Amino acid sequence: MSSAEVIPPQKYGHPPPILLTLTILPISLCLIVNPLLPLILHSIPSSNYSLANPDGQPSFPALQASIGFALLAFVGVVWLVPKVSEAFIQKGLRGRDLLKKGGRISGPWIPESLGLPCASWYLALMMLFIPFPFSHLFKSQSPSGPESFPQRELTLYLSSLLSLLTATLLGFIDDLFDIRWRHKLPIPIVAAVPTLLVYYSVGGVTSVVLPKGFSGWLDTLGLARWLDGSVVDLGPIYYLYLILLPTFTTNSINILAGINGVEVLQALIIALSVLINDLLYLPIWSPALLDLLGFENPQNGRVLDWAIGEVVDRHLMSCYFMLPLVGVCTGFLWHNWYPAKAFPGDTFCYFTGMAFSAVAIQGHFSKTLILFFLPQIFNFILSCPQLFGLVECPRHRLPFYDEKTNLLNPSLVVFESPPPLKTTIVLEILSFLRLVKLEYHRPPNSKNSTEKKYIKSSTNLTIINFLLVHFGPMREDRLCMLVGFVQVVGSCIAFAIRYKVGSWFYGGDRR
Amino acid sequence: MSSAEVIPPQKYGHPPPILLTLTILPISLCLIVNPLLPLILHSIPSSNYSLANPDGQPSFPALQASIGFALLAFVGVVWLVPKVSEAFIQKGLRGRDLLKKGGRISGPWIPESLGLPCASWYLALMMLFIPFPFSHLFKSQSPSGPESFPQRELTLYLSSLLSLLTATLLGFIDDLFDIRWRHKLPIPIVAAVPTLLVYYSVGGVTSVVLPKGFSGWLDTLGLARWLDGSVVDLGPIYYLYLILLPTFTTNSINILAGINGVEVLQALIIALSVLINDLLYLPIWSPALLDLLGFENPQNGRVLDWAIGEVVDRHLMSCYFMLPLVGVCTGFLWHNWYPAKAFPGDTFCYFTGMAFSAVAIQGHFSKTLILFFLPQIFNFILSCPQLFGLVECPRHRLPFYDEKTNLLNPSLVVFESPPPLKTTIVLEILSFLRLVKLEYHRPPNSKNSTEKKYIKSSTNLTIINFLLVHFGPMREDRLCMLVGFVQVVGSCIAFAIRYKVGSWFYGGDRR
Repeated sequence: MSSAEVIPPQKYGHPPPILLTLTILPISLCLIVNPLLPLILHSIPSSNYSLANPDGQPSFPALQASIGFALLAFVGVVWLVPKVSEAFIQKGLRGRDLLKKGGRISGPWIPESLGLPCASWYLALMMLFIPFPFSHLFKSQSPSGPESFPQRELTLYLSSLLSLLTATLLGFIDDLFDIRWRHKLPIPIVAAVPTLLVYYSVGGVTSVVLPKGFSGWLDTLGLARWLDGSVVDLGPIYYLYLILLPTFTTNSINILAGINGVEVLQALIIALSVLINDLLYLPIWSPALLDLLGFENPQNGRVLDWAIGEVVDRHLMSCYFMLPLVGVCTGFLWHNWYPAKAFPGDTFCYFTGMAFSAVAIQGHFSKTLILFFLPQIFNFILSCPQLFGLVECPRHRLPFYDEKTNLLNPSLVVFESPPPLKTTIVLEILSFLRLVKLEYHRPPNSKNSTEKKYIKSSTNLTIINFLLVHFGPMREDRLCMLVGFVQVVGSCIAFAIRYKVGSWFYGGDRR
Repeated sequence: MSSAEVIPPQKYGHPPPILLTLTILPISLCLIVNPLLPLILHSIPSSNYSLANPDGQPSFPALQASIGFALLAFVGVVWLVPKVSEAFIQKGLRGRDLLKKGGRISGPWIPESLGLPCASWYLALMMLFIPFPFSHLFKSQSPSGPESFPQRELTLYLSSLLSLLTATLLGFIDDLFDIRWRHKLPIPIVAAVPTLLVYYSVGGVTSVVLPKGFSGWLDTLGLARWLDGSVVDLGPIYYLYLILLPTFTTNSINILAGINGVEVLQALIIALSVLINDLLYLPIWSPALLDLLGFENPQNGRVLDWAIGEVVDRHLMSCYFMLPLVGVCTGFLWHNWYPAKAFPGDTFCYFTGMAFSAVAIQGHFSKTLILFFLPQIFNFILSCPQLFGLVECPRHRLPFYDEKTNLLNPSLVVFESPPPLKTTIVLEILSFLRLVKLEYHRPPNSKNSTEKKYIKSSTNLTIINFLLVHFGPMREDRLCMLVGFVQVVGSCIAFAIRYKVGSWFYGGDRR
């Protein structure tokens, strides 16, 4: 048959960018080697890592190396993915792209779970990176002994890596053996144990600052004895919240999926948002610039008076994790972008989700992180009627692909018989909020028949279908870009809440 | 056909011991909960962890919990392996037992790589165990703050877990995708990075003590300036040695394989040896007992004067890792014992090998560990002519299974043509040492023919074939027990070298 000839010989991945690679490689190597030079040459005596040095210009050699590692992460993933694709397909880690012409039946196999090489490469780089934040300690000619080594930061670093590695392993086991949904849910909790213990061990804060006025209400209720000013110590409840955080970050990315590139793009934008938030805490900005960008009152204590010491260290560590993650996501997006040549699998979602949780817990900005997940939260709340069985839930809730126009349309849940009352009420509310589009079954003879008007179909309850309902049918890559745009808008709102509304709400005392 | 009826319906694993499980479970839970009781009840004020308390009897609540975890490890593995076997077989992680009747063609599929559930269960338990060595710190009503937390021990613990997890992930990737031998070799090196960095960070020793007399020779050669008494600081070379250690421990177990249960039994005996060595350092033995067991001069500084403080802590940590490992190995041996219902795969060898390396590096007893690998070293040296291509090397070098007698015989490398001179020399030497059995091709007419006598075949160069040559054909389980016996003898020799010869050799100054 000619159909065999129409399908081109299987090529794995989009062709990697040779010129870009050749440009990036030497730059990345320079960035990595440069901080090591004083160490190798023994030329500069001491204070290269002059962070706490108040008069000198602060320099961040490890951050520089981290950018080098991020570029290496990008290059590595771009080249690694096509190399390993065939092995994945042969081992049955493969799927067909359901949203392509003939994809459901005769489309080419596309390797699945390629989050594994991404995560492995990322973790290998992060392990090689371990010495860099501590490189200033290797420099002194006479080793200063174990006492001066910042065990504490090393502990934070190692426990984050441990959580990440656990998440990767468990994600891959999930991809391979298809663990049931119920057994899957506690996976991120196990993976979070090291992070949490270390959070405790470094004297992690378990208190939250109450909003203005709220402490007044508690006072009225006679609950003021638990308060220390407007700070309330939640103790074990705070740990419960920290345990649930990885569950949330990993699964919420996993749920907002289904079209080419969308999981990776989400992760990329969240990583960039976390990175921007981290950079704000580094003492490299002039107060005027921060003012210009609208960060309220940076001189009087919002950002800058924490700027020296521990808070900077925490956000630096977060940078070290986020920069290579941005590299990995960009590299993988190269192959996962429409038309996708590689699928991320649960491995990718678990690994990126855990990376966000780990840095947020160790960096003490878990509430800020949650703000970056606004689209995911919206998607989760919208999905609830389907997740909890009020409305039937097909496996993937993909949009409907129209082969004629090559466009995606909202997909429908069709009701064979009139849905129960509670379902009708929920769907009517969602329809009133313009979150779904309903179609009604109208009885043919309006007078004689005993049949009543009832909901015949509803669009699936996902943010992707919601966007398709409002912006009309569109091609898969445009839809993915639209989701990315929503994510960017979400991050902008998050920054506004964090630095504008938050400071008004909490009266400036945020920890 | 009736053959389909002859093969019984596939049962996964040997039947787990229900009665034993029901006995062990409550005991293990008691052991785990008991150390937590004072913490929960707030009844006992302070010094439960009275290790450094010189007048009181030392108690080891975390060690007690560790025994509980070891029992849980055993029970968990015994029940987990049959549960997951079908999923492994379905995913193509399976093999046939070549040393059984008809095994090569029509034998049942046996799940492979079951090191993965073992390692996962072990790691999950070890993560849950993290708080126990630090439980005495949770007890004080007012938390004593981050400064008093022993970050250093936590760092050691976390980095070991990280190395273990990396080894597990890489081992499993190897099992799944069959990485080539060349690419495989550096895998343990990557996995060892966290352990090594932490070894550095806690001020790891890089000096070795020279044997008596050796420093005298160096002195004669004018090299004495590098010496500090009889101690020489190897610096980076010592790290090179530490990097190669995991490569050695993981691969040497992997090479001594091929018959049911042999990898697991080796790992079990080495783990027990390490454990016994650790227990010798705990201050629980009367000097008289140590004397009786032949540990030279324990009062005057061999064992007991290190017995308080850091050395005890190190060996306690080693115990925490080895006890559950013994549990896991025993549990897996249940299913891997002749006739095997589950194969360990590379995952198991990598994971156990890395466990030994990690505790030995962190516990500063890497040289002692190598002594416990005497049979593996012997096997490796014996294998060299085949590993380096002097003699042809079939894939597994399994013994030859005789279906009639159900016994294993030495397997042969047959030479079609006369082997080259160097091969002949090597084999003749090995034959002279009685390590192989050669057969010669003798020309039919000794006078007229120009043909010379040459080696027609040799037994394969493994310790397993060596044992078969000397003890005659035997059944697979007996052979496995014999290898185990050799391993036990090796450990006895190791203890003798370590505590008898070593103290004479190094003049008592061993660190």
